[in-house]
Amino acid sequence: MIKTINKLKCEEFKELRFLKSNKNKFDQKKIVLFSFDQIKQALEFKVDINYIVTTSKDILSFAKSNNIDCFETQPGILNKLHNSKTKIDVLAVCQRRENSFLLNNNVIILDNIIDHGNIGTIIRTGVAYNYNYFLYPKYDFYPYTNKILNASRCTNLISNFKNFESNLELYKFLKDNGFLIVTTSPHGPKLNEEKLTYLKENYKIALILGNEQNGVGEFFIKNSDYNFCLELQNNIESLNVGVFAGILFDKLNK
Amino acid sequence: MIKTINKLKCEEFKELRFLKSNKNKFDQKKIVLFSFDQIKQALEFKVDINYIVTTSKDILSFAKSNNIDCFETQPGILNKLHNSKTKIDVLAVCQRRENSFLLNNNVIILDNIIDHGNIGTIIRTGVAYNYNYFLYPKYDFYPYTNKILNASRCTNLISNFKNFESNLELYKFLKDNGFLIVTTSPHGPKLNEEKLTYLKENYKIALILGNEQNGVGEFFIKNSDYNFCLELQNNIESLNVGVFAGILFDKLNK
Repeated sequence: MIKTINKLKCEEFKELRFLKSNKNKFDQKKIVLFSFDQIKQALEFKVDINYIVTTSKDILSFAKSNNIDCFETQPGILNKLHNSKTKIDVLAVCQRRENSFLLNNNVIILDNIIDHGNIGTIIRTGVAYNYNYFLYPKYDFYPYTNKILNASRCTNLISNFKNFESNLELYKFLKDNGFLIVTTSPHGPKLNEEKLTYLKENYKIALILGNEQNGVGEFFIKNSDYNFCLELQNNIESLNVGVFAGILFDKLNK
Repeated sequence: MIKTINKLKCEEFKELRFLKSNKNKFDQKKIVLFSFDQIKQALEFKVDINYIVTTSKDILSFAKSNNIDCFETQPGILNKLHNSKTKIDVLAVCQRRENSFLLNNNVIILDNIIDHGNIGTIIRTGVAYNYNYFLYPKYDFYPYTNKILNASRCTNLISNFKNFESNLELYKFLKDNGFLIVTTSPHGPKLNEEKLTYLKENYKIALILGNEQNGVGEFFIKNSDYNFCLELQNNIESLNVGVFAGILFDKLNK
């Protein structure tokens, strides 16, 4: 179905107006995509797109040929349906997948990582290593922002996220599900490769990745089963957290 | 020496006016820093700062207490000494170190990597693994832009860079200096860890890192001594080049 609509307050755009807030998207189990690239990547990952609203003839004909419902509209209206000042030429609504939370692989804890570019990069690398369970110790973390969609190359659409009310709640969840908690800190003992090999072969691992400025928080350092530092040269104290995550994912790869 | 200057066309600012172009900075072996953070990082790496021009009282008193020559000026003048529209509160001139190019360690080739954030991240990680020789197959690559300084956390100031006129010239340099050329491509044979271990223990390695869109160019793939792919899951074809570099540096770590 293709339809032209040049009115903001119509029935067809009611959902999108409601979905401007992340909280509503989260509650409704909906995800909004913000670019043609994101739509194409989502389709590659076999994500169902409910409908598209666009000002672009190219996207319109793409929607037609892919049999996706599409509303054509004007730039002024499209940008009012969007919760940012960045100009866009498309919005697309899709359904969040409801994967049952099977915890038989390693999980990644994003311990107050702030930058959405870093979070997206970590998700992209994680999925490449088949780690697609990401836990966050705050109840309002929203993993489908435009920046995370871009940096993750939409691999967040095929990942699983779970928010927790607090560090303690997250910790209990990990222990109840038999995870070994692995942390890193610049002043921890040097990595013992043999020990890590033993652990990764015999346990499900919860890898804690720390905040950009402060690293892994004290709570998880204290409550970790194995804490180590990656030895760096030339007095370098830390790496970019996305790079650091990639190196650790590779080391934990079974 | 601390001095207040409120005139753009004065003798004291003649050098900075000239250094607005990267080419002139390069020819004069000068580096310009663009923030207080960069100045502090540079001093941690024991880089000599010739002088500072600033509008900030804090930086002025920092310069005083660190015995660095400093000119206080007005925002309008400072921003005219700067070749970008971003507002800044400081410019600092320092001397590029003249390290003799000792090639007894691995070297990293940035094969047309475009994004300065990625380049900076690669340098930061490289230096942390003690790889601080970076070769670029274009004669006009300038490794001290504001963005590279930030993303590398000023580790570019303790790195060595060499530009080449062409891929061929770079290739000859590598072969004349006894390097083994290692490349990666998504469709190459799967990484053989034993082979890599043998190579890294017995050879100096030139690791080619490829462009964000196209990966390592055909020239270096064709002329490589060892080409492999890193096996990725979930149909992920590639990783962010900065992350990918980190994983490879760790694998090549001796």
